[in-house]
Amino acid sequence: MPSNTMMPSSSTAPTRFLDVGDQRYAYRRFGEGIGLPLLCLQHFTGTLDNWDPAVTDALATGRNVILFDNAGIGRSTGTVPSTVAEMAKHVMAFLDGLHLTNCDVLGFSLGGVLAQQMAQERPSLIRRIILVGTAPRGGEDIMHLEKPSLAKHIQDPQNRGYAVLQKIFFAPTATSQAAGAAFIGRLMQRRDDRDPPPGPNVGAAQLAAFREWERFTGERFADLKGIRHPTLIVQGFKDDMIPVRNSYWLAENLPNAVLLVYPDAGHGSLFQYAESFCKQAAAFLSSDSESAVF
Amino acid sequence: MPSNTMMPSSSTAPTRFLDVGDQRYAYRRFGEGIGLPLLCLQHFTGTLDNWDPAVTDALATGRNVILFDNAGIGRSTGTVPSTVAEMAKHVMAFLDGLHLTNCDVLGFSLGGVLAQQMAQERPSLIRRIILVGTAPRGGEDIMHLEKPSLAKHIQDPQNRGYAVLQKIFFAPTATSQAAGAAFIGRLMQRRDDRDPPPGPNVGAAQLAAFREWERFTGERFADLKGIRHPTLIVQGFKDDMIPVRNSYWLAENLPNAVLLVYPDAGHGSLFQYAESFCKQAAAFLSSDSESAVF
Repeated sequence: MPSNTMMPSSSTAPTRFLDVGDQRYAYRRFGEGIGLPLLCLQHFTGTLDNWDPAVTDALATGRNVILFDNAGIGRSTGTVPSTVAEMAKHVMAFLDGLHLTNCDVLGFSLGGVLAQQMAQERPSLIRRIILVGTAPRGGEDIMHLEKPSLAKHIQDPQNRGYAVLQKIFFAPTATSQAAGAAFIGRLMQRRDDRDPPPGPNVGAAQLAAFREWERFTGERFADLKGIRHPTLIVQGFKDDMIPVRNSYWLAENLPNAVLLVYPDAGHGSLFQYAESFCKQAAAFLSSDSESAVF
Repeated sequence: MPSNTMMPSSSTAPTRFLDVGDQRYAYRRFGEGIGLPLLCLQHFTGTLDNWDPAVTDALATGRNVILFDNAGIGRSTGTVPSTVAEMAKHVMAFLDGLHLTNCDVLGFSLGGVLAQQMAQERPSLIRRIILVGTAPRGGEDIMHLEKPSLAKHIQDPQNRGYAVLQKIFFAPTATSQAAGAAFIGRLMQRRDDRDPPPGPNVGAAQLAAFREWERFTGERFADLKGIRHPTLIVQGFKDDMIPVRNSYWLAENLPNAVLLVYPDAGHGSLFQYAESFCKQAAAFLSSDSESAVF
């Protein structure tokens, strides 16, 4: 699909639409190179406009990058499901609609949860997985926005729009907050054809899905043994939204995962260290090995 | 010292000797490039001949690599001290004797403990630190060779010499054990000018030092906050000699550390994944940033 694949960047790629049955999905697709397409699955309440061009443009120099609004997000129709399984069904329907039978996945936060669900349900759909700032089923302290340390930023009337994101995605240090301000600046580079901001029902349904994801039956983390895809796990040590021990559990229980953790970084570690992250991610994605080690 | 610095490899570099007062230290120095010299500090009972040429030769393509026998090890004179502080004094005396006022350090296992001690006592001596398979003061389960999972290999009369190393440095999987066999093969490439194997007093004194290192006073891990050097921490998830939680504690409490953990690997993760490790280590060492992120 050359008309979809030569778009220059996150800031300028047009929003496209794919109809699958009654459902319409909004997405952007750009980049070129010999790599498999990379599907990017977005964080809690994030839209197409929440992807940092410093990350997606760099990765798009070696492959098609596909940004995706799940059902009920941005300009995708439908309602946001309240379970991970239902959300993952939409992602798979979207990939089927694009006739993509195999791709790499970058799952950030909620997106990383969906990537795990998809890898278990339809392993053949995915080749390599990057999980950033996410948690396994049965993980702990996943997106508890009612925690005082998060609530104080979210409820502060001085913090509006992207200012909240800077506070809660970045560590409370001068260096990390400066990186957060730069990140916000990059998000603002796109001027036209932007998604509408999420309504309150989006967050409520997604939080319900996180609460369900924290529950487990049987042996804790045993389900991870079945995900044999080469996996790169990335997180910041100061992530207060999904603490780093969740990445430890992921990496210790997935049979084929490399763990990379950054200092002085919170939930948005991949954006704070976009250059390092993209170098590591590109090296990982470029490998043909059956091992995650790159 | 050009005569010392152009030696071709771990397998052929001659053993050299440096006298400092009454003490004679054995060492090897080889490699070239613009990087700072890299001092390699060895593991429990290891001699100059226990460094994997796949690691040291690759790193020596960008810098001088210095392998070092601490007091009482290999052909260095003196007795092995029973505390980390006394061992670190010898390393610093050796560097002073070489007139090296600033270097990078690769500390593996016991060597990583010495690197931490030196970084606290003489921070200016070190620029960047790589800590592999090691533990902070106050760490847990550090080299308890009496554990059944380790003792069964060490006490097995079928395991002699390097065969023990393969069992306890590599994970109990076919893939990791195969990597261990390849590692042993590489250690055997050096035929002449080899160190004598360690006597029983070496291990006893080094184990006493580990037991002392497990003890702490005051706030646990607070001493790590003072080590501001850019640090790269590497370990295998299946390290039974110094379990990975020790690397978590290191990386969470050092203010400027990146953590990298490998799957299907034990204590010898850097040897199992020599190519990946050297690529990461070289990128880390080549950085001029004040941040550990590379």
